[in-house]
Amino acid sequence: MPIIWQAIQKPTVLIRQQTAKANIARMQHKAEQAHVLLRPHFKTHQSVEIGRWFGEPKQTPIAVSNTDMAWKFVQAGWRDILLAIPINPREIDNLNELAASCRLTLVVEHEDAFQTLRQLQFPCRIFVEIDTGYVRTGMPWFEPKRLKNMLTRLQMQAFLTDLGLMVHSGHSYQAVGKEAVEQVHQESMSRLNRLISMMQWQGRRLHVSVGDTPSCSLMDDFPGATEIRPGNYVFYDLQQYQIGACTWEQIALAVACPIIARYPERGEVVVHGGAVHFSKDWSYIAHKATGETTQIFGQVAQKLADGWGAPIEGGHVVSLSQEHGRVALPPEMIKKLRLGDLLVIVPAHSCLTQGLTQGLTQATGTQVQIF
Amino acid sequence: MPIIWQAIQKPTVLIRQQTAKANIARMQHKAEQAHVLLRPHFKTHQSVEIGRWFGEPKQTPIAVSNTDMAWKFVQAGWRDILLAIPINPREIDNLNELAASCRLTLVVEHEDAFQTLRQLQFPCRIFVEIDTGYVRTGMPWFEPKRLKNMLTRLQMQAFLTDLGLMVHSGHSYQAVGKEAVEQVHQESMSRLNRLISMMQWQGRRLHVSVGDTPSCSLMDDFPGATEIRPGNYVFYDLQQYQIGACTWEQIALAVACPIIARYPERGEVVVHGGAVHFSKDWSYIAHKATGETTQIFGQVAQKLADGWGAPIEGGHVVSLSQEHGRVALPPEMIKKLRLGDLLVIVPAHSCLTQGLTQGLTQATGTQVQIF
Repeated sequence: MPIIWQAIQKPTVLIRQQTAKANIARMQHKAEQAHVLLRPHFKTHQSVEIGRWFGEPKQTPIAVSNTDMAWKFVQAGWRDILLAIPINPREIDNLNELAASCRLTLVVEHEDAFQTLRQLQFPCRIFVEIDTGYVRTGMPWFEPKRLKNMLTRLQMQAFLTDLGLMVHSGHSYQAVGKEAVEQVHQESMSRLNRLISMMQWQGRRLHVSVGDTPSCSLMDDFPGATEIRPGNYVFYDLQQYQIGACTWEQIALAVACPIIARYPERGEVVVHGGAVHFSKDWSYIAHKATGETTQIFGQVAQKLADGWGAPIEGGHVVSLSQEHGRVALPPEMIKKLRLGDLLVIVPAHSCLTQGLTQGLTQATGTQVQIF
Repeated sequence: MPIIWQAIQKPTVLIRQQTAKANIARMQHKAEQAHVLLRPHFKTHQSVEIGRWFGEPKQTPIAVSNTDMAWKFVQAGWRDILLAIPINPREIDNLNELAASCRLTLVVEHEDAFQTLRQLQFPCRIFVEIDTGYVRTGMPWFEPKRLKNMLTRLQMQAFLTDLGLMVHSGHSYQAVGKEAVEQVHQESMSRLNRLISMMQWQGRRLHVSVGDTPSCSLMDDFPGATEIRPGNYVFYDLQQYQIGACTWEQIALAVACPIIARYPERGEVVVHGGAVHFSKDWSYIAHKATGETTQIFGQVAQKLADGWGAPIEGGHVVSLSQEHGRVALPPEMIKKLRLGDLLVIVPAHSCLTQGLTQGLTQATGTQVQIF
């Protein structure tokens, strides 16, 4: 389906279907080559329509990051769902209902969670989150005895069907370049494997779920893992491009924003497109001359008849307020632009941009065109 | 209505009605004393229920920042609406329908807008935005001839009912302390008044709409203005508190987040509450010893039976991912907290937090309790 530029009135998310499907297929191929299961994280797109691009719902294991997403996909036919956030005791009733409705995997990361686990009333799988260096959530990688005790207790848990470990090496998002991502990945995998070997686990088979988009995009081997769990790779974004996790051409999501003010004298235009559309997540751009970096919120791309092309040098979203985006542009480009013309902007973080469109279509008038 | 803590399962926005209503009344009183009309900016709350706290819809002039908000409030009974963003040529049909449905004020800021204005088919008011130093949108304050020509042309505009100027001194958000806000306010008002006097305007009476929350909160006089247009003052937030635009007690919005992980050894807990709930807007905290500032995304408050109390020293949201928030807390507090306990967190920016809850209730399970 071609893109319909003239139908765009307001900030509109553009999703390049062919690119997204190629990203999905490439990761699927990689998982097969590496002999791991692919469990895409659906928090990135949160869309049933896009979810179907990954395969038959009934045959596609997925990860989500809250129970509302879990319900959305259960109701649309998905059956194997990992809730990739430590369990919240206040949601026990909700978790029980979910466990009764699908093959549910829950995540725990501390002995304190047993108090909640005792209230489970339906079969489910339980994964222990391990922190291999990201320092967000997870049992630290250097406590083998503690993990062994935890798993031993979990084996006696009523309704337990499967046991596993889960790692999210989110610090790979701070890496720049393949070498730096490789360092995070290798450190993380070796810490994980050392932990497993040191605790001399003899119990039930352990599933091992790993995966962050930079590592899954740039690495080919996941030694010790049984599944990978990337999310952002379906769209990618400016952050992933800066990391080197994708090429510019692999980015499948951008936002078309109407120009509402022009300032040739400032070297800027202002678009309708703000924090409620892009979120306020950011990336950086390095200045060629000085090497200094500047915080930016999006990168302008060439607008083509059938989508978008190369990044425009000097075309950056330099600040965002609630609905306005200030965009620096080359002078010769500003001269040609008129009020109402569209800028195509690759956001810093696709997950948050797409998350906003899923919920805020009504409130902010953000719209989506899949082409 | 008392707050019902045990009903909270997921990240939940708490709105302290009494405080919000006192904020509304105080600004109303100030406007009356200063002999200016109060036109609250409804982008902050985006809620029909809360909108009614400002008075009878039919008698309350309001500002909004996009056409979807405008429609929402028109449909709920509001009749005097300023669309406080430069007109977007792509929305001309929508603007015409709105103009046919309420007393609409549109904003322009450049001669280029006449091409769109020619397509207006219903009576409306037009305000020219003036940039008095914020450098986002607006005709620069130092171009009196240009403004005079613009207003003269606008007077001949078909369907024009009223003419005005609009200023948003958003750079007051960068100020810290009453003196700094006063400096922005005085500079802005004097530039505006000088512009008006220099262009020797003899035409139709000019409405003059000004207002940003810091200036409207801290200043008492708005010389030359006919109306003020603050928004954030209904709730306030951490940014406004750091600016000095409100006391801690005047903050009317916070987010209750369940603790999902505890790390006494790191001096942190992790809550369910992330960028999809708080947005990724930020504020700063100064270290007492060094004077250095650190970026934070929220401030933890004491949880009380009937709401929240003082800020907890050292209780800060230090990072946000999509659904997780890492929160630094004093060691003695972490000792007492358990998984599932709630933290009450004042966000950096209420407008974005509340904006997310309006749209994302379905997608993220954010809920709202008004108490």
